[in-house]
Amino acid sequence: MDGSASPMPTPRALPYYVAFSQLLGLTVVAVTGAWLGLYRGGIAWENVLQFNVHPLCMVIGMIFLQGDALLVYRVFRKEAKRTTKVLHGLLHVFAFVIALVGLVAVFDYHKKKGYADLYSLHSWCGLLVFVLYFVQWLVGFSFFLFPGASFSLRSRYRPQHIFFGATIFLLSVGTALLGLKEALLFKLGSKYSTFEPEGVLANVLGLLLVSFAVVVVYILAQADWKRPLQAEEQALSMDFKTLTEGDSPSSQ
Amino acid sequence: MDGSASPMPTPRALPYYVAFSQLLGLTVVAVTGAWLGLYRGGIAWENVLQFNVHPLCMVIGMIFLQGDALLVYRVFRKEAKRTTKVLHGLLHVFAFVIALVGLVAVFDYHKKKGYADLYSLHSWCGLLVFVLYFVQWLVGFSFFLFPGASFSLRSRYRPQHIFFGATIFLLSVGTALLGLKEALLFKLGSKYSTFEPEGVLANVLGLLLVSFAVVVVYILAQADWKRPLQAEEQALSMDFKTLTEGDSPSSQ
Repeated sequence: MDGSASPMPTPRALPYYVAFSQLLGLTVVAVTGAWLGLYRGGIAWENVLQFNVHPLCMVIGMIFLQGDALLVYRVFRKEAKRTTKVLHGLLHVFAFVIALVGLVAVFDYHKKKGYADLYSLHSWCGLLVFVLYFVQWLVGFSFFLFPGASFSLRSRYRPQHIFFGATIFLLSVGTALLGLKEALLFKLGSKYSTFEPEGVLANVLGLLLVSFAVVVVYILAQADWKRPLQAEEQALSMDFKTLTEGDSPSSQ
Repeated sequence: MDGSASPMPTPRALPYYVAFSQLLGLTVVAVTGAWLGLYRGGIAWENVLQFNVHPLCMVIGMIFLQGDALLVYRVFRKEAKRTTKVLHGLLHVFAFVIALVGLVAVFDYHKKKGYADLYSLHSWCGLLVFVLYFVQWLVGFSFFLFPGASFSLRSRYRPQHIFFGATIFLLSVGTALLGLKEALLFKLGSKYSTFEPEGVLANVLGLLLVSFAVVVVYILAQADWKRPLQAEEQALSMDFKTLTEGDSPSSQ
């Protein structure tokens, strides 16, 4: 074990990056609301307005809450590991349920209007990402919370869980951009090229979505911003090393 | 120093993942060509066909070659560091030049047709990513090749270079998806929802683009697939540790 596993103070820059990510995330939600309110007549579960439930719910669930769920281990550094895990899992559940409402809204709207389903690249990516999100949650839950896998299996699965978590998040953002573009082109058509205010606002929303994604993944990618191991995890990890590698806990 | 820095054999699974990434990358280029050939009249530097130079060049440059440039350090594991660096830089130059031809094609086409420039989210993301790509190349070149920064500066900049390299690559893929969607909706309009063959082919192309991006970043993200330090780099790194941390080279 080297010194990096001992209890460490929170890295100095981390809170600023987290605050910036939250500012961006809330701005994304607010601008989505503003776009739907100003140019699409607002939100309701009836007529044309029912469609608008879809982008708002997807942005709140699959972008903002999903992004925040990924940051839980960077923000809660000293709480018990289990509490942090439960929070991580719960945030994903909230995100999933809100996104589900958004999906029901659009499928129900299509049905009422007699529109075809699942023909566009946005819908293909969306369906893929939603299924992957669900599977990732189930596998994560069964490995890390209940019933829980062996220490060895968890150690091997953890990097995959993190990689696919970030991938699903980025794919969600990409899908949102495709949906935004679709919504713009269907309504504005060639007026998009005259710099209509709605088009410009939606482009800004697109760049904000990209910025939120970059900041969240940047925070995740900093090796020294990872949550430090707690005392009991260190002991476990040392026992495991000793068992599997024949190392003495103090070597390496 | 622990044992991980000593010369290691190539990880067993790596060549298969690299081969798969190349298969995907070449398929992306081939499907883009097929799409343009079958449904858009092919490629030429005149009339409507000039536009088609744009997607083909951007996919070859900003997707396939950029992705391959990122993989250079995973593929060339035993060659001199400097040779590998030069190859990495050169692949990015090829990618940049090909993408530049693709940009000239679309701006020139817009000009001839009297279309507006830079109004869409695709164009905003594209411009942003192209400028970032150029800046990243310049900074990378001046830090790592000429004139070259100090060992300490390079060590601190390297993780940023890697993070922003992957970010720019993913943003390129996202921009390509937006462009694909734009090209589809402009031409197909509401026919998109009747599962026209062109729409389905373009959706498949979109999923292939996403798959290529995921596989490339997956290869980059595996910590134990990183290029092992060569003898002279190990010596440098140990000297540096000794100088800055007062560690003896054999400690830690």
